[in-house]
Amino acid sequence: MTGAVNSHEILVMPTTALDEKSADYAIVCAIPIDAKGITMIFGRQANDDRRDKMERIDSGKPRFAAVGGEAVIVFDDVFVPHEKIFLNGETEFAGAIVYRFAAHHRANYGACKTGLMDVLTGAVSYLAQAQGTARASHIKEKVTEMIHLSETLYSSSIATSAEGWRTPSGGYMVDTMLANVCKQNVTRFHFEVARLALDIAGGFIATLPSELDMKSEEVGHLVKKYFSGVEGIPVEDRIKIGRLIEAMTGGTALVESMHGAGSPQAQRVMIFREGDLANKIKLAKSLAGIRQKAKGVQI
Amino acid sequence: MTGAVNSHEILVMPTTALDEKSADYAIVCAIPIDAKGITMIFGRQANDDRRDKMERIDSGKPRFAAVGGEAVIVFDDVFVPHEKIFLNGETEFAGAIVYRFAAHHRANYGACKTGLMDVLTGAVSYLAQAQGTARASHIKEKVTEMIHLSETLYSSSIATSAEGWRTPSGGYMVDTMLANVCKQNVTRFHFEVARLALDIAGGFIATLPSELDMKSEEVGHLVKKYFSGVEGIPVEDRIKIGRLIEAMTGGTALVESMHGAGSPQAQRVMIFREGDLANKIKLAKSLAGIRQKAKGVQI
Amino acid sequence: MTGAVNSHEILVMPTTALDEKSADYAIVCAIPIDAKGITMIFGRQANDDRRDKMERIDSGKPRFAAVGGEAVIVFDDVFVPHEKIFLNGETEFAGAIVYRFAAHHRANYGACKTGLMDVLTGAVSYLAQAQGTARASHIKEKVTEMIHLSETLYSSSIATSAEGWRTPSGGYMVDTMLANVCKQNVTRFHFEVARLALDIAGGFIATLPSELDMKSEEVGHLVKKYFSGVEGIPVEDRIKIGRLIEAMTGGTALVESMHGAGSPQAQRVMIFREGDLANKIKLAKSLAGIRQKAKGVQI
Amino acid sequence: MTGAVNSHEILVMPTTALDEKSADYAIVCAIPIDAKGITMIFGRQANDDRRDKMERIDSGKPRFAAVGGEAVIVFDDVFVPHEKIFLNGETEFAGAIVYRFAAHHRANYGACKTGLMDVLTGAVSYLAQAQGTARASHIKEKVTEMIHLSETLYSSSIATSAEGWRTPSGGYMVDTMLANVCKQNVTRFHFEVARLALDIAGGFIATLPSELDMKSEEVGHLVKKYFSGVEGIPVEDRIKIGRLIEAMTGGTALVESMHGAGSPQAQRVMIFREGDLANKIKLAKSLAGIRQKAKGVQI
Repeated sequence: MTGAVNSHEILVMPTTALDEKSADYAIVCAIPIDAKGITMIFGRQANDDRRDKMERIDSGKPRFAAVGGEAVIVFDDVFVPHEKIFLNGETEFAGAIVYRFAAHHRANYGACKTGLMDVLTGAVSYLAQAQGTARASHIKEKVTEMIHLSETLYSSSIATSAEGWRTPSGGYMVDTMLANVCKQNVTRFHFEVARLALDIAGGFIATLPSELDMKSEEVGHLVKKYFSGVEGIPVEDRIKIGRLIEAMTGGTALVESMHGAGSPQAQRVMIFREGDLANKIKLAKSLAGIRQKAKGVQI
Repeated sequence: MTGAVNSHEILVMPTTALDEKSADYAIVCAIPIDAKGITMIFGRQANDDRRDKMERIDSGKPRFAAVGGEAVIVFDDVFVPHEKIFLNGETEFAGAIVYRFAAHHRANYGACKTGLMDVLTGAVSYLAQAQGTARASHIKEKVTEMIHLSETLYSSSIATSAEGWRTPSGGYMVDTMLANVCKQNVTRFHFEVARLALDIAGGFIATLPSELDMKSEEVGHLVKKYFSGVEGIPVEDRIKIGRLIEAMTGGTALVESMHGAGSPQAQRVMIFREGDLANKIKLAKSLAGIRQKAKGVQI
Repeated sequence: MTGAVNSHEILVMPTTALDEKSADYAIVCAIPIDAKGITMIFGRQANDDRRDKMERIDSGKPRFAAVGGEAVIVFDDVFVPHEKIFLNGETEFAGAIVYRFAAHHRANYGACKTGLMDVLTGAVSYLAQAQGTARASHIKEKVTEMIHLSETLYSSSIATSAEGWRTPSGGYMVDTMLANVCKQNVTRFHFEVARLALDIAGGFIATLPSELDMKSEEVGHLVKKYFSGVEGIPVEDRIKIGRLIEAMTGGTALVESMHGAGSPQAQRVMIFREGDLANKIKLAKSLAGIRQKAKGVQI
Repeated sequence: MTGAVNSHEILVMPTTALDEKSADYAIVCAIPIDAKGITMIFGRQANDDRRDKMERIDSGKPRFAAVGGEAVIVFDDVFVPHEKIFLNGETEFAGAIVYRFAAHHRANYGACKTGLMDVLTGAVSYLAQAQGTARASHIKEKVTEMIHLSETLYSSSIATSAEGWRTPSGGYMVDTMLANVCKQNVTRFHFEVARLALDIAGGFIATLPSELDMKSEEVGHLVKKYFSGVEGIPVEDRIKIGRLIEAMTGGTALVESMHGAGSPQAQRVMIFREGDLANKIKLAKSLAGIRQKAKGVQI
C-alpha cells in the first residue's frame, strides 16, 4: 500500500504461505489505481495538517510536501483482466512469492534508510554549524556514530546483493539471511540515529513557532531575533533545517522503519530459521574435542 | 517556559553562573503571566493541528487535548514589584541557584517520565490484547523491558531524594550526582521505551485514517471493519489507544525528554565533575598494591 | 555457595517453591563448614593458577590474592542439631523464603557492584594518566559513562531499601520489584563497564609478559623499558594497575555478575509478574477516554 | 606481533604517518623469526597456565591448546638483507602503507570474528541442549540475536570487498570507510555476543571444578554426578563445551577484539574523516529548500 496513491497500477499478493483450502486467496495481480470497486482511505501521518495547509516550511519538506502517504485499500468486486493475473490459485507457490518479495523489500530498505540517515547527518551537521556547536568534541562523536550506523546499514544492503544468486529465469535473488539482518538493523538504527539527531539539534525544535508567526508583522521580528544563530547563516535557514530534522525523526517516519517490509519479529523468526544451527554446533563440537555423531538440533 | 501559558505567574532566573560584569542579568523574580510588556509566542508541537481542530481522538488525548505547550517569552520593559524580586545583582549566588534548580528539575523528571512510561506500557498492553498478541513470548519480553526501564528510572528518582539533605533554612536539597544520572537516563529510556511501544503496537499507527473518516457515512463502516481487533474490544477503543500511543512516542514528547531540564551533555559534564576520581583512584591503587602519595588527578 | 570456603558456617535453603510431595526438601538450616559428611570441590576461576603460584602482581590482587572462590558442596548424611534447623518440612513457606532471600541478595548486588565499578573507574583513570591519555575527550566521555552506569546501579540499590517495609517481626524487607530491577542492571552494566575499561586501557593487557619476566635478569630491563608510560609513574605501577583491570573485566567476575543471585531471566519473570499491568492499563484507558469496566489483563 | 611466534618470517612496518625527520623509522621489511638480535618476550594470556600444564579440557581448546599468543618483539641491531626491504626512508609513503594495511586488517577482522561468533553460537546451542533449555523462548531470542550480530558483521566484511577497487599494480584495495565500520562493530559485537553466551550458558562456568578433579578417584564421581545434564549427552561433553565457551568469552579474546588492528577511536577518527559531510549537508540543504552556495564544512 506504500506509495499506492502515487502509482498508476498497484500489485496485489498474499501476505503469508497458504494451504489448499485458501486457494481463493492465492492471487497475485496488477490493477489500475482507479479501477472500479477500489476505495482508498488515506491515513493520517505525523503533522500532515501542515502539509495540507501549504505551510511548506513547517512541513519540513518545502519542495516535496504535497506527496506521499499510505492508504487502506478496500476491494469490492474488482475486475482484473486475465493478462494481469500472475498467480491464480496455485497455493504451493504462495509462500515462496511472499518470502522472495519480502527479502527484496527488506534488502532495499537498507539502502533507502542509508539515504535518509545521510540526509539527517547532513542536516544536523549544518544546524550545528548554524548554532556554533559543530566543533565540540561530543557533537563530533555523535555525528561519527550517525555515520557509523548509516554505513553499517549500507554494508548490509550491499552484501545482500553481493551474496545474491541468479535464478533459472535470469532474474537475481538476494541473500535472504542478510536481507532479514539488514531490515532488522533498520528497525533499530533509525531510532538511534533520530535520538542522536535530536540530541545535537537542541530543544528549539520543540518550541519553534509556526512559519506564519515568523512571517507575521506583529511578532515575526521577535521570532527572527531570538532564533538566530551564528552570523552568516540566515535565521530562516536554521528554521528550515530544524523543521526537516523534526520531520525525519518522529511519528510516521519511525513507525515505517519499524514495520515496513515486515515487523521486527518476522525478521527474527527467519534469522533463527536460516541460522543453520546444526552446522554451527558441528563446528563447536569439533573445536571442543567432542565426537560428532550429532544429535539432531533440538533448539 | 514549560507550562507558562497555563500558569498565573512565571518564575524568571539566569541559566548559567555569572561574573560581576553580568550583574544586570543576575535577576530572579516572579511575574504575573499577563504583565505589561510580556509577549508569548506559542510554539508548534507535534500534531497540534488535530488538537486545534478539536479532533479529540486523533489528538491522542481526548480528555486533555486543549491544554499544554511551550512558548517563547519575550520581555520588553516589564515592571516587577520589589517583593517579587529574589535575586537582584548578587552574581555570586547565580551559579548555585541555577545548579540547585536544575538538580531538582532533573530529579523530578525521573518520576514524571516513570508515569509516562507506565501509561505507555499500559497502552501497548491493552492494544496487544485488542490485537490478540498479548500472550506471544516476544511481546511479553518487550513489555518486561518497558517495565524494567521505567522502574530503573523510578529508582533513580527515589534515590535522589533518599540521599538528599536538609539545608540550614529547613528546605531539602536532592543529591546532585543522582539528579544528573536520573535525567541522563530520561534522555535514553524514553526513546527506547517508545521504540518498544511502536514495535508492539504494529504498523497500523502509520496507516490509520482520521476520526472524521471513521465517523463519515461514506467510509466509516469500512474503517470500522478493517481496523477491528479481537471480539469484545470495540474498534473505536483500539483506535483511541493507538492514537494515545502515537502521541506519546514521537515528536515534541521525545524532544522534551531529551532537552528539558538541560541537554544530555550538561548532565555528563556534571557527572564527570562530581565523580570524585581522586578517591576512586585511591581505591584502585590500594587494591593493586600501589603506594598512594597520590599524584593529583589529571584526567 | 559463594564464599562458603571462607566461612565458619554455611546456610542451606531450598531454591524454589515446593509442594507437599517435596516436604523432605523443605529444609533451612546452618551447618559448620567442617561438619562430617560435607565435601567441597573447589571450582576453577579465571587465572587462578597465577594466584596459586603466588604470582601476586599477575593475579591482579596482590594484597588479597589468596582468598575467594566458589565450591560445589556435596552433602552425604550430614547431622544437623535441632537448634540449627529453621524450616523443617513446612513447604508452604518455602516459596516465600526463597523469594525474600533472593530479593535481599539481588538488592545488595547493586551496592556490591557499584563498589567494583568505582574501583574499575579509578583503575582506568589512573592508567590513562600513566599512559598520557587522560585528557583526551573520548577518554573523558568513556569515564563519564562508567560513572553514570555505576551511579545508576547505586541509585537502584538505595531505592530498593528506601521503598522497603517493616515486617511484623521487626525486620525489614526490601522492595522486591526494585531488587529485581537492580540485579537485572548488574547483568548488563558490568559487561558494558568492562568493555569501556578495556577500551580505555588499551591493548597492552593482552601482550603484557609475566611478572617473572619483569623480574628476570635476562629480559626484565626490556619489559620495563617498553612498558613504561609517562614520567613520574613507575612502570611497575602501570603493570599492577593493568593486571587489576584484567582481573576485574573478564572470566569468573563477569559470569558471577550475570548469574549470581539468580539468572537474568529469573529477574525478568518477576519484573513482569510484579508490574501490575491491570493498573497500568487502567491509567492508559482513562487518558484515552475508554470506559473502564476493565477486561481482565490477559497478557 | 599477532601470531609472530608461529611464523617463519615477520613483517615490520611503521604504525603512523611520518615526516622527513623520521626517515630512519620509515622502514618496511621482512625478517626470519630467528634472526640474530631479535628477542621475543611472550605475553600472558587468560588462563594460559591451564594450557601450559596440558590440562587440555580446561584450556577450552583440547585440540589446539598448544598454539597461539602474542609476544613483545625487541630488535637489537638486526641485519636485514636488501631484497627483504620494501620501504627505506621514503617517508611520503609511510602514511599510505599504514592506512592500507590497517584497512585490510580491519576488513578481515569482520570475517574472522564472524567465524568466532558462529562457533560460540553453536557452542551455547549445544550446551542449551545438554541442559534442557534449548526450547525456551528467551533462549531462542538470545541465539537469534547472536546470529543477527554475527551476520551483520559478516555483511560489513563482504561489503568492504564488494566495494573494493583494483589498484594500478593489479592488486585490490578494500573500501576504507567500510573497513573501519567493520572493525568498529567487532569492538562492540564480540562483547555483546559474549554476554549473551554467558547468559545462556548459566552459572556453572564459574563453579566448574578442574578436569583433574573430574578424573580423580576421590571426587570424580561427584563431579560427574552433579554436573550431568540431559540424558544422552555425556557429562564430559557438557564440561568440554563449557570450557570452550569460557575460553571464547573472556580475557585476552575480548581485548584482542577491542584493540587488534587499531583501537576503537582510531576507527572513529577515520569514519568521521571519510564521512564526506560537505556532501551530506548539500543533500539536506536541497531537501530543506536552502540555497546551496555552501559555506565550507566547519564541523
